[in-house]
Amino acid sequence: MDVKEINEMLPFLLRLENVARYEDGIVVIGDRRKYPFEKSFVYCSTVEETAIAIEEMVTQGGGPGNVAMYAMAMAARQCADQPAAKQIEILETARQRLTMTRPTNTAVARRLEKIMQIIKESLEIGENIENALMLWIEDQRAANLIKHAATGEYGASLIDDGDGILTMCFAETSFLLTLALAKKAGKKFNVFTPETRPYLQGARLTAPSVHELGIPVQIIGDNMPTHVISQGKVQKYFTAADLVTLDGHVVNKIGTFQNAIAAHYHGVPYFVLSWGPDNKKPDRASIEIEERNPMEMKSCRGVPTTDQAIDAYYPAFDITPPHMVAGVVTQYGILSPYDLHRYYA
Amino acid sequence: MDVKEINEMLPFLLRLENVARYEDGIVVIGDRRKYPFEKSFVYCSTVEETAIAIEEMVTQGGGPGNVAMYAMAMAARQCADQPAAKQIEILETARQRLTMTRPTNTAVARRLEKIMQIIKESLEIGENIENALMLWIEDQRAANLIKHAATGEYGASLIDDGDGILTMCFAETSFLLTLALAKKAGKKFNVFTPETRPYLQGARLTAPSVHELGIPVQIIGDNMPTHVISQGKVQKYFTAADLVTLDGHVVNKIGTFQNAIAAHYHGVPYFVLSWGPDNKKPDRASIEIEERNPMEMKSCRGVPTTDQAIDAYYPAFDITPPHMVAGVVTQYGILSPYDLHRYYA
Repeated sequence: MDVKEINEMLPFLLRLENVARYEDGIVVIGDRRKYPFEKSFVYCSTVEETAIAIEEMVTQGGGPGNVAMYAMAMAARQCADQPAAKQIEILETARQRLTMTRPTNTAVARRLEKIMQIIKESLEIGENIENALMLWIEDQRAANLIKHAATGEYGASLIDDGDGILTMCFAETSFLLTLALAKKAGKKFNVFTPETRPYLQGARLTAPSVHELGIPVQIIGDNMPTHVISQGKVQKYFTAADLVTLDGHVVNKIGTFQNAIAAHYHGVPYFVLSWGPDNKKPDRASIEIEERNPMEMKSCRGVPTTDQAIDAYYPAFDITPPHMVAGVVTQYGILSPYDLHRYYA
Repeated sequence: MDVKEINEMLPFLLRLENVARYEDGIVVIGDRRKYPFEKSFVYCSTVEETAIAIEEMVTQGGGPGNVAMYAMAMAARQCADQPAAKQIEILETARQRLTMTRPTNTAVARRLEKIMQIIKESLEIGENIENALMLWIEDQRAANLIKHAATGEYGASLIDDGDGILTMCFAETSFLLTLALAKKAGKKFNVFTPETRPYLQGARLTAPSVHELGIPVQIIGDNMPTHVISQGKVQKYFTAADLVTLDGHVVNKIGTFQNAIAAHYHGVPYFVLSWGPDNKKPDRASIEIEERNPMEMKSCRGVPTTDQAIDAYYPAFDITPPHMVAGVVTQYGILSPYDLHRYYA
């Protein structure tokens, strides 16, 4: 399959142009905060506007990396008539500002380091920086989509006709391609999506995206996966991962672990869709769990859920140990969580 | 402790007069849907209005039983000038309507059977039925509060200084008395309450009630208990039960089971506060799980959480097997889930 074909297989939210795009000097970002109530976009014409959009969670998951790269192309265009040294100075300032938006997300930082390298190379050979960046960024995004599709092919091979599939949060492109490819192969199955409080990624992003693919999907509460599994309605559990350690611990949206325990208890296999393990994270001890503002646990879409005098606690991620992971699904195949070094072989 | 003393130990929501009361032919129900945002009451002047109030979740837990009994007293008053056979017919119809409101929780059914017995006895000896019922109901409620306090004493004995306590949904009087009595005994501890979607009983009812007792409490998402347990922050897990079968299966608000699995996995004991087993429910096969309107899973306090075209699923209860239950705490002591016949000995 080529990139166009894969992209058209995806639901609205995940198509390359709806995640983010660059339109004649403007960075356009799909607004996930309003989805599915509105299909709207945020238009940014300065680096500062783009940085604020990232900080305000207009996009998430794979979004911020792409948005930050486009913001660099925009910055390059805006300073193209400056002397080379001045351009480097301006673009270096932009890089720092954009990197700061996600202090814990190393993906943004790493991508912008690569972008700076291209900027310097282009300046040396007198090439138009904006054009050079755009060529590289679009190539990169296309290559990533191909990798997602390879992961999706492996994921789809794990789905059997008649399966009930449980997921958690919004497992994005690899998951939606897993479903789309299983459907294309003629398999019939249905999906359960826990709503994923407090931001409702399951209810707002996953469920409408699965529905758009024409696959039966039901939203359940975050308190319901175990019961639904115990009813025999779930045969496979799939999530993405924010991080997989080299020794097979899976860090993902909080709730992933309790569903994994329940799946394990009932003999339902848990598969993780992943770019592969992080080779800088050897084990559980190397993981830092982000604790977000407890205020976020006291409302739902802006409506208070309790008396605001009451305290709350909001750890954002949890850790599933490798003995509950049936397989880590990557572009290179389905790896045992105890055999992840193979990914780098 | 006498009834007045126990009642005053309770938070606002659980005081007898705020759960429900009978005021000169009107059934007055504390409106738990609006708590803690409003402290308001629903006034019912017919059996049908009362049944709908129960179905619409104005009250829950122990509330429906009391409300249904008061509705029978109200019905008796309204048909007092009819011939005896007609009164029986009308009251039997009322009993059936009120029993239908709660298929999973058998407490309503059992109480109304007793009420019908009193009605028949009163008719035979020509007594005023409304008065006979009110005498019995108020006696019953007082006696129940004494039993809750006995259960609470046993519950409090299980709490150790420094404990973190996890609960689920709104475990009501026995649980709040457990906490109040443990605090009175000088123990320091803190409580985690999952918010309990879709109705937020944990966030709206439990957390403010615990807070009112001056005990530290934190709201977490329904997707967070397992992670919080894994952090070593929880030493005991307590819930109420809508039903305990004679062979030790616990039916309670959905989510109870997945927390029990997680507690079991991490070696945290799970205690069920209960009136004791239902001797008409021998085992798991005898349990009927209520499935509520899926629409309820697509909003939060009236605000939509997804596109309304998307399907949802909302089973209201789950079943925890006896091997995950450390003890069933009753007015007669802490029973093994495998030894519940002792309750009737």
